[in-house]
Amino acid sequence: MLRLSQFPFKTLKSAPKVSDNHSTSLLLQGGYIRQAMAGAYEFLPIGHRVLRNIEQVIREEMDAAGYHEMLMTILTPREMWEITGRWDIPEYFKVPGWGDTEYRIAPTNEENVTPILGEFIQSYKDLPTCVYHIQKKFRNEKRAKSGLLRGREFIMKDAYSFHASREDFDKFYADVKQVYLRCFERLGLGADTVIADADGGAISDMNSHEFQTYLEVGEDIIVSDSSGYCYNLELASGIPDDKNSSEEVRLMEYIDTVPDIVNMEKMTKYFGAPDWQMLKTVIYKLQDSWKYVGVVIRWDLDVNEIKFGKFIRNIYAESFMLASEADLETLWTVRGFISPLKDSQLQVEFYGDESLKTVKNFFWGANTLAKSTKNVNIEDLDIKEFWDFSEPKEWFLSRNVSGEKLVFKRASEVGNIFHLGTKYSKPFGLSFTDENNQLNDVVEMGCYGIGVSRLMGVMAEYFMTERGIMWPENIAPYTHYIIVMGEEHISRAEELAWSLETQGYSVILDDRVGRKDGFGQKAGDCELWGIPNRIVLSSKTLEQGGYELLTRGGESKIVGL
Amino acid sequence: MLRLSQFPFKTLKSAPKVSDNHSTSLLLQGGYIRQAMAGAYEFLPIGHRVLRNIEQVIREEMDAAGYHEMLMTILTPREMWEITGRWDIPEYFKVPGWGDTEYRIAPTNEENVTPILGEFIQSYKDLPTCVYHIQKKFRNEKRAKSGLLRGREFIMKDAYSFHASREDFDKFYADVKQVYLRCFERLGLGADTVIADADGGAISDMNSHEFQTYLEVGEDIIVSDSSGYCYNLELASGIPDDKNSSEEVRLMEYIDTVPDIVNMEKMTKYFGAPDWQMLKTVIYKLQDSWKYVGVVIRWDLDVNEIKFGKFIRNIYAESFMLASEADLETLWTVRGFISPLKDSQLQVEFYGDESLKTVKNFFWGANTLAKSTKNVNIEDLDIKEFWDFSEPKEWFLSRNVSGEKLVFKRASEVGNIFHLGTKYSKPFGLSFTDENNQLNDVVEMGCYGIGVSRLMGVMAEYFMTERGIMWPENIAPYTHYIIVMGEEHISRAEELAWSLETQGYSVILDDRVGRKDGFGQKAGDCELWGIPNRIVLSSKTLEQGGYELLTRGGESKIVGL
Repeated sequence: MLRLSQFPFKTLKSAPKVSDNHSTSLLLQGGYIRQAMAGAYEFLPIGHRVLRNIEQVIREEMDAAGYHEMLMTILTPREMWEITGRWDIPEYFKVPGWGDTEYRIAPTNEENVTPILGEFIQSYKDLPTCVYHIQKKFRNEKRAKSGLLRGREFIMKDAYSFHASREDFDKFYADVKQVYLRCFERLGLGADTVIADADGGAISDMNSHEFQTYLEVGEDIIVSDSSGYCYNLELASGIPDDKNSSEEVRLMEYIDTVPDIVNMEKMTKYFGAPDWQMLKTVIYKLQDSWKYVGVVIRWDLDVNEIKFGKFIRNIYAESFMLASEADLETLWTVRGFISPLKDSQLQVEFYGDESLKTVKNFFWGANTLAKSTKNVNIEDLDIKEFWDFSEPKEWFLSRNVSGEKLVFKRASEVGNIFHLGTKYSKPFGLSFTDENNQLNDVVEMGCYGIGVSRLMGVMAEYFMTERGIMWPENIAPYTHYIIVMGEEHISRAEELAWSLETQGYSVILDDRVGRKDGFGQKAGDCELWGIPNRIVLSSKTLEQGGYELLTRGGESKIVGL
Repeated sequence: MLRLSQFPFKTLKSAPKVSDNHSTSLLLQGGYIRQAMAGAYEFLPIGHRVLRNIEQVIREEMDAAGYHEMLMTILTPREMWEITGRWDIPEYFKVPGWGDTEYRIAPTNEENVTPILGEFIQSYKDLPTCVYHIQKKFRNEKRAKSGLLRGREFIMKDAYSFHASREDFDKFYADVKQVYLRCFERLGLGADTVIADADGGAISDMNSHEFQTYLEVGEDIIVSDSSGYCYNLELASGIPDDKNSSEEVRLMEYIDTVPDIVNMEKMTKYFGAPDWQMLKTVIYKLQDSWKYVGVVIRWDLDVNEIKFGKFIRNIYAESFMLASEADLETLWTVRGFISPLKDSQLQVEFYGDESLKTVKNFFWGANTLAKSTKNVNIEDLDIKEFWDFSEPKEWFLSRNVSGEKLVFKRASEVGNIFHLGTKYSKPFGLSFTDENNQLNDVVEMGCYGIGVSRLMGVMAEYFMTERGIMWPENIAPYTHYIIVMGEEHISRAEELAWSLETQGYSVILDDRVGRKDGFGQKAGDCELWGIPNRIVLSSKTLEQGGYELLTRGGESKIVGL
């Protein structure tokens, strides 16, 4: 039982203004959290209970799935990170010890879990296995956002699985999706949480999925259609709208223009044509071979560098960077007028976005200052291959459902799952003996994260009302809130509170007395903290025969004491 | 339910040799823990359950006492530590961020909790209040011990209380002792855990107590008598044995000796007298005023520098260091021959240990090389004050119970409590309005620690048997261990396991089959993990009518399925 008369963590009269989002303001106002420094939050008693309730739901689902809970270290030795080549990632903290010793406070625990399991996994009988822990992680974020969404210190549930084969991993990975969906269902987010195909980013180039909860203030955009297609915008794909592809192809002409028509406004004005009838070309230099590659797209669309990067890495296994002015000079072209015209024979390998096929008779540059072309068509260009490089726009059509427009929705990431392959098991030398007693050194791994403190922020945003945070009943910090009006009724209220606690409920007893602690204040705190059952005990309710009980979404009624 | 056939964290055949203590070997053998690096341990699934059970007992007692659980940050901003003057403590980690930013991963959380409560405490009605959290802490130990007793990373329960007056603090402090004793009682350590008066060390110069559990391998020595007197040896006090104090006082004489009689062996041989009839003198220089102070004691006893330091700081409020050879030269004396003879008039303020009164006619130096004295008595010396500066020996008598010898016992610290006074509340500017609406800026604080991971180490040592760790029933990782003999009985055992889990028990189902997994292996693991209820299900037990149940300390019996 929490007696508010003895609780110093009072709610604030008004919500502190926080730039990023309103839920953080509410969490601050409600005394749930307090900022210790940019990106690191203290969980005050009320917030701590919410956090633990969220944790508990996740733990129960992990346990039910047969994953083994453990607790890995936060301090980790430098050597482990050198083995995986991740020691020098600038977003990961380094902690100096005595002498030359350096440690890392872990941002993720592959460097712990892989050598641990390496010691214990001996035979195929030990596989598959999955372990998890719930613990704080640390990232040296350059700019930490306010609130719980992206911190320097945050709580993660991270699970790691180990498999004797890719098939076994795939089966397990499919199961994890269901385990995760059950978690989010039990957290009340089920209706608005989807699984989006996602880019593995720095962690993995392999299969990965994000669990995204639709939220107006979400930091991601999820693109979907009615077929079940669901992608993070970073990787989404759709059919660009047809513009004038049925128009007759005209003969290309070179025209003199002026040097400064290098932005859209000036070009549309100069040519008297819409933006989609112009093109843009971006040239990149490969990091190792110094070869140049270019991508060509309609000017009203944007190149998705992640897609283009994957495409290029599939061919060259190299990273790339934007070509500099000096690079363009050696190529005999000029920024603003770059064009893969067959005539120009640039030493660049050009790839075209499919959107080029939706337009006829483009206007374009001619690789010389103040020289342009008109009526440019695909036949005039030196394009090695067409592919989907564009970032879909809201008017793009689905590739799966004929004639259907893609749906764009903002969302916040609440979980992610990755295929790690042998990225960690190889360097740590994991192996096992198979059914035929042969040594097998290919151990497939997966990792599965849920940001627990982030989830609390997302849930605050999702369940926020005008007056508080309407936590799901299993997550609310307490189940019952007893408002006592009149000092003379406190002992009866206390009895009631004890009796409820005996029944397994958790109770806030608002036994505050004093000028400032009227009914409004008390009812307000009850809403701010999202307590699902509100009880009022006063002379009036006693006259009516007991106390007033207002359950969430229900009618208030008098219950006999 | 934990099915061992699907559990990779197997126990080891034999206990790995660890220098410090046998319980660490058992914890490693049992797959409870694994060393990630010196001073930082991974808690594997079995060990994690033990840890959480210990945590839960502590949490329940804290909650029952009305302390509020919260969760503070691990990363803390440098500025907070500068406010309290603790930024440059070398045993506390510093963590570089971007640019010049530096953080600390907290070794203790006064620098979090004080400013937090400073925001919330407004009136005397908010006091007293006590908050706690259970979280990892970090210390940059130069040499980390193996095992869980002293790590670079460890789990602490730390509580902090805030008070409107010293009287209120004292009352609260007495209550905390009872709360702590209940914790250790519930953890099965009650019979051997005592409260020892202790030095606050670096944290506090004020009142502090240690909770010490008697253990043969304990790192501390606890000195007690039958009156309830109980002190850490560091601070203990007793009556030195009388040697020859009834002997007749003889006249002091200077004698020529030799330069090299500066160790006990040579002196006793040279003078033909016992060690207690010689003296030792240690000279210190005060850090600020450069004044010299000396302490004189019987040579068979040791000066307790903590006691002497407290005594000197009470007079001079300064720290001190050992005088160097150069210092001694300026004082006109020589190491090995230093003596506070009235004749010598050294510029040193000498204090004498009370043991000097138990001996007559000492042998001693004369502040010149190869010059000594004999028949030295107190009257010949320039001693400013006599006081108790000695570290008690096992033959010392109690000061409280006449004629009783002090009892010395090895113990391990499991908790400590401190009076912090206003050491933190002052620099963070805490204040409150009192009953008369006056601002009061004296907020008394206390802090109360229990090393949770250390406790697991101490308990492992305490409950260790030849074959495993006999955890108390409420701490054991599981309540039941089912040994199935014969693959054909696994499904019945599984039913039994489910039925026990439904009743609220936690069950290990040892369903391993195979050559190496015979009864001996299974029964051994059950003991290594200290599971209190062992069930055997085999063709034989089924013939006898069900399964065999062996409860701890009980007789085995057959129970019908």
